[in-house]
Amino acid sequence: MSTLEQKALEYHKAGSAGKIATAVTKSVATQDDLALAYSPGVAVPCVEIQRDPSLAYTYTAKGNLVAVITNGTAVLGLGNIGALAGKPVMEGKVVLFKKFAGIDSFDIEIDETDPDKLVEIIASLHPTFGGINLEDIKAPECFYIERKLRERLSIPVFHDDQHGTAIVVGSGLLNALNLTGRKIEDVKIVCSGAGAAAIACLELILSLGAKRENIFVCDSKGVLTTARELDGEKKAWARDTVATKMGEVIEGADMFLGLSGPGLLSQDDVKKMAPQPIVFTLANPDPELRPELVREVASDAIIATGRSDYPNQINNALCFPYLFRAALDSGATTINQEMKIACVHALAGMARTDERFGRDYVVPGLLDARLLSGVTPKIAQAAFDSGVAKKQLDLEAYAQQLIKLGETLL
Amino acid sequence: MSTLEQKALEYHKAGSAGKIATAVTKSVATQDDLALAYSPGVAVPCVEIQRDPSLAYTYTAKGNLVAVITNGTAVLGLGNIGALAGKPVMEGKVVLFKKFAGIDSFDIEIDETDPDKLVEIIASLHPTFGGINLEDIKAPECFYIERKLRERLSIPVFHDDQHGTAIVVGSGLLNALNLTGRKIEDVKIVCSGAGAAAIACLELILSLGAKRENIFVCDSKGVLTTARELDGEKKAWARDTVATKMGEVIEGADMFLGLSGPGLLSQDDVKKMAPQPIVFTLANPDPELRPELVREVASDAIIATGRSDYPNQINNALCFPYLFRAALDSGATTINQEMKIACVHALAGMARTDERFGRDYVVPGLLDARLLSGVTPKIAQAAFDSGVAKKQLDLEAYAQQLIKLGETLL
Repeated sequence: MSTLEQKALEYHKAGSAGKIATAVTKSVATQDDLALAYSPGVAVPCVEIQRDPSLAYTYTAKGNLVAVITNGTAVLGLGNIGALAGKPVMEGKVVLFKKFAGIDSFDIEIDETDPDKLVEIIASLHPTFGGINLEDIKAPECFYIERKLRERLSIPVFHDDQHGTAIVVGSGLLNALNLTGRKIEDVKIVCSGAGAAAIACLELILSLGAKRENIFVCDSKGVLTTARELDGEKKAWARDTVATKMGEVIEGADMFLGLSGPGLLSQDDVKKMAPQPIVFTLANPDPELRPELVREVASDAIIATGRSDYPNQINNALCFPYLFRAALDSGATTINQEMKIACVHALAGMARTDERFGRDYVVPGLLDARLLSGVTPKIAQAAFDSGVAKKQLDLEAYAQQLIKLGETLL
Repeated sequence: MSTLEQKALEYHKAGSAGKIATAVTKSVATQDDLALAYSPGVAVPCVEIQRDPSLAYTYTAKGNLVAVITNGTAVLGLGNIGALAGKPVMEGKVVLFKKFAGIDSFDIEIDETDPDKLVEIIASLHPTFGGINLEDIKAPECFYIERKLRERLSIPVFHDDQHGTAIVVGSGLLNALNLTGRKIEDVKIVCSGAGAAAIACLELILSLGAKRENIFVCDSKGVLTTARELDGEKKAWARDTVATKMGEVIEGADMFLGLSGPGLLSQDDVKKMAPQPIVFTLANPDPELRPELVREVASDAIIATGRSDYPNQINNALCFPYLFRAALDSGATTINQEMKIACVHALAGMARTDERFGRDYVVPGLLDARLLSGVTPKIAQAAFDSGVAKKQLDLEAYAQQLIKLGETLL
């Protein structure tokens, strides 16, 4: 076992097991306090909420509470390890929600793999939470599950593995294009991987202006083509080409987007790409091709990974805390496309206006304390402008409030 | 609105809405910390738990985590107010778990009233928690739901409204009998109310030695008799008698057990009871008959209520925190009858050995700091002796550990 592995186990075991606990936010020191927190006083907010359900946001934790929900079918790169074994990841997500955006959350691991049953279970939990973050649910079921829940519920439902990755990839791509003087409608993109995150990235890149005819997608069997029998989400990405291998379609590509596994990009592939190639090798922890090996054959490449020990870390935590913060604070009933796009531009803008902006800084750093107050208000504004938010926030006052919140967190 | 009502609303609203939040228990100050708490380090405990599921108790919060679950069908005395409106009560329970026993818990409000569907939903959540506390689910469904979940799950499942009340009533009754020199097998008991708590109290009192033929139960239609058409749990309590009203069967009764509503016991009823009557008027917040009115006609009565402003408060919080503390710490797969009976005797013993012991002190006070270390080890021992605990605790060391824990809580 490596040092990191030993340290990780020790970290999770030391003191109280795990990483999270419950905190009581009100005084319960005396019998009088208890009479307010519990019987008989607690009956009063119950009756008020029964009369006006929106008062749950005034008298309970619901308005700052997000569920982190998985069934353990696609945990990290480990695959279907089951709900229980996914618990450390979900508790980790709870930590990130709290640390980056002051959002309280519970992890919920559900022992159910049938998509319809899972939808029923998750939907039934809606009174508890102000929002639902779906996590590590395998494709293609994850698309159906998210869609059904979004249709049924009037609180935000967001599958982070899809959209979180997509948003950060989108912002990194916009800045890479800016640095290399390309236009998004002209770039040729080759994507390795056709899972939930890959499909969501490509959909978002399309909505940023890329052309479908410039995009080639490869799964474990090669290029998605019209000659192959494809199901569900993959079908939309089938190309009418005789090429079958990635090595063929990568010729002249401007961008490689890797959401697959180690070894699935070669130096020969990189050599075939256009000058100043954009190489996002996001397989984690082991990229499709390690950055130093990309650099050997393309010194002018812009490289991003999912790792914290290389520049340009594409990490969902750059967006999901702020998306939910904005949704909760604006009373948004959903996290819609407009809010995601606003997040893409806010993240890209924050990197672009940083003095470190360049090939090794196309996305902000994960621990940048300006993210909370810089990104969140723009998402809240998009929520209001697109008609899904209950309240219009005074953006300047809101940013100030978030700066104060941030000081208590990081 | 009364002062208490205004205060209760203000209490729930002030600062951050509600009463509970998430706490992060490990350091997440640096990128290195994040690499342990989340990707890539978090994959290591995941893999370990997949290999050996029992390690979830070592690497996650599961071992100190209880779900507080309701569907809002019988909240306090408010009835079926729905899952959302029940949330303040469930958050209150979370507060009590933390304050009295250092147990972390989440409240889960489920929008589902069908008993079978509710069982499916709750059962599917089992990987998340170390135990499940069912709360405010209406009778008779609650009996079926608890039974099914207990059969299916290997973590403790406990419907507090039934058993919590029963245990505290049981301990108060034992001490009242002790004070008045009665034997439990001789006492005549009249119970007003036939809901979940009433039935559970009577079952427990039976298992403490009372005789079924000495017990009369009344619901809103009068005495449960064999002449009436009764369903489910009520049937077992039908008596072959021509009496139809409580006023008839209360003649000579040693104990009145009220789990019904205000006004359902009269001074005339009390006058008909045996000398030194035991009068538990537990309707909350308004008892069946107020203690001062009982006292007017029976100066030697032993009176208990559910209220904190009278002596002898029968409150579930005297037992559920310690039952779950003992179950979690001993690795018990269930909370069985032996553990409940051990709790009855531990609570009764603690009151009996107190210098305040007497008519106005038949159960310990809710805020008595000795409860955690005094009651819990006895329940843990019963869990081990009855074969449902994974580990035998060194009771003296365990009590010392609980004393230390208690000092951090109250």
